[in-house]
Amino acid sequence: MRIDPARPGVVGDRQRAIEQELVDRVVASFGDAPDDRLREVLTALTRHLHAFLREVRPSEPEWQAAIGFLTAAGHITTDRRQEFILLSDVLGASMQTIAINNEAVGDATEATVFGPFFVEDAPRIELGGDIAGGAPGRPCWVEGTVTDTAGNPVAGARIEVWEADEDGFYDVQYDDGRTAGRAHLFTGDDGGYRFWGITPVPYPIPHDGPVGALLDASGRSPMRAAHLHFMVTAPGLRTLVTHIFVRGDELLDSDAVFGVKESLVQDFVEQRPGTPAPDGRDLGDRSWTRVRFDIVLAPAPGDG
Amino acid sequence: MRIDPARPGVVGDRQRAIEQELVDRVVASFGDAPDDRLREVLTALTRHLHAFLREVRPSEPEWQAAIGFLTAAGHITTDRRQEFILLSDVLGASMQTIAINNEAVGDATEATVFGPFFVEDAPRIELGGDIAGGAPGRPCWVEGTVTDTAGNPVAGARIEVWEADEDGFYDVQYDDGRTAGRAHLFTGDDGGYRFWGITPVPYPIPHDGPVGALLDASGRSPMRAAHLHFMVTAPGLRTLVTHIFVRGDELLDSDAVFGVKESLVQDFVEQRPGTPAPDGRDLGDRSWTRVRFDIVLAPAPGDG
Ligand SMILES: [Fe+2]
Ligand SMILES: [Fe+2]
Repeated sequence: MRIDPARPGVVGDRQRAIEQELVDRVVASFGDAPDDRLREVLTALTRHLHAFLREVRPSEPEWQAAIGFLTAAGHITTDRRQEFILLSDVLGASMQTIAINNEAVGDATEATVFGPFFVEDAPRIELGGDIAGGAPGRPCWVEGTVTDTAGNPVAGARIEVWEADEDGFYDVQYDDGRTAGRAHLFTGDDGGYRFWGITPVPYPIPHDGPVGALLDASGRSPMRAAHLHFMVTAPGLRTLVTHIFVRGDELLDSDAVFGVKESLVQDFVEQRPGTPAPDGRDLGDRSWTRVRFDIVLAPAPGDG
Repeated sequence: MRIDPARPGVVGDRQRAIEQELVDRVVASFGDAPDDRLREVLTALTRHLHAFLREVRPSEPEWQAAIGFLTAAGHITTDRRQEFILLSDVLGASMQTIAINNEAVGDATEATVFGPFFVEDAPRIELGGDIAGGAPGRPCWVEGTVTDTAGNPVAGARIEVWEADEDGFYDVQYDDGRTAGRAHLFTGDDGGYRFWGITPVPYPIPHDGPVGALLDASGRSPMRAAHLHFMVTAPGLRTLVTHIFVRGDELLDSDAVFGVKESLVQDFVEQRPGTPAPDGRDLGDRSWTRVRFDIVLAPAPGDG
């Protein structure tokens, strides 16, 4: 299906030599870059970019279309809308960068994408408090422990949680300045934590720009699987940025940004109206859910 | 010097499997793209992009810096300033696309980059006419023939020529709407052509944006080797977009966009003041140059 530059008769030896000589010249042009890391990155970028070009062999109009795509992505990008991050996300590049920077260690909880909706200085809640802050949605009791990879409880770990409301919007996507669906709390002496949130629902990434058009042309959905964001920090341990996902969500296999890891899919157990809440809260005639998420933090990089 | 994902002890088997599984998922996500070519291109893009990431293993701040670079390139790009083309140029991607689309055929003249300064509807001149149109510079007599790869002269071939003035600027870079340093003419019955131009001088690509900063950080110059642009078209033959370069130019080995091909470097022969011009033109007390450029056109793609 693809043109193979190494297949005789498709690209001849002479042509192949011309193309390779160009690659060598571009690599050589970066040979005097004073910063070792910059030289390493630009050299690798040159090799992989040219390997891509030599494999797909774009026509000149196709290459112009690629330039046009990047231009449109640049022009729709503002302080509030970052189309290049979306592009990185839908190509799995963001998730790969996360994977590279959070190497698997023992049974440490896996990381996933950070996303664009984290906010510094979200309100603090006590153990058992509510992060909803008025965000509409079905209540969800979330509980678990934070331990290190040796199984020791981590007391005083800081847990940031944030999520979309039942309409699929984060607070920062509204124009009214609300703070809702986000908070931070600290684990108790036993490493335990618990809070009320809302049951996650799927939502689309912004898809009215060139990245949305790319997804559409590719037959891909812009929807993210339903999730609840966590960021967990504790001294001497690796910061964990992750989500939990909802077992049974039809979107688990088609998350637009490839954030789903099987280990992060949790049982959000349905609770019928009238089921007593763990903290005695009166939920009236509403149904709710509960989920357990036990978090294991890796050692901080370098401690090993 | 670079981290090798295949080197045991650097990236372990488990981590490598996690990274590869992600690549496979992204590739699979494009598996239902209805257009074969789009699927082929996006699949290859995914593989090469992830191979790049897995090789250089960017930190999260480094990946954010890459996003920031693309954002800055998008924001400086306007109808008149195309930073993504400059980026493509300085990475050799534009030249590679030219090479791919103009495969070596017999002794056909080699192609090079088109550049941003071509204009449709440049004035027509007769054989032996002057393209300068008032552009300042030392006169240069240019002559040669256009033939096919069998050596047959090509009568009536259309030759577009364009170049910067002695200050390194194309007419379109001035705000006064001038047309200068560009024209088109047609070969005679013997395939011959000749015209007066001006002796090419080096000039920089625009380097006040992120691409200029990249060149600067890499210890590279933004200068293009001195050149004169040609585009030659004739029925049944492959359109040739190329330049000629000036033998002895110190910039031949460091052209910012990798446009130089040894076969395109020509002798611009210095003529002392008072040397009679080939067409009897009175050049007063000025020195001038002359150059011969014989052009061989490949068969049109698909013709043999
Ligand atoms: Fe999210
Ligand atoms: Fe030029």
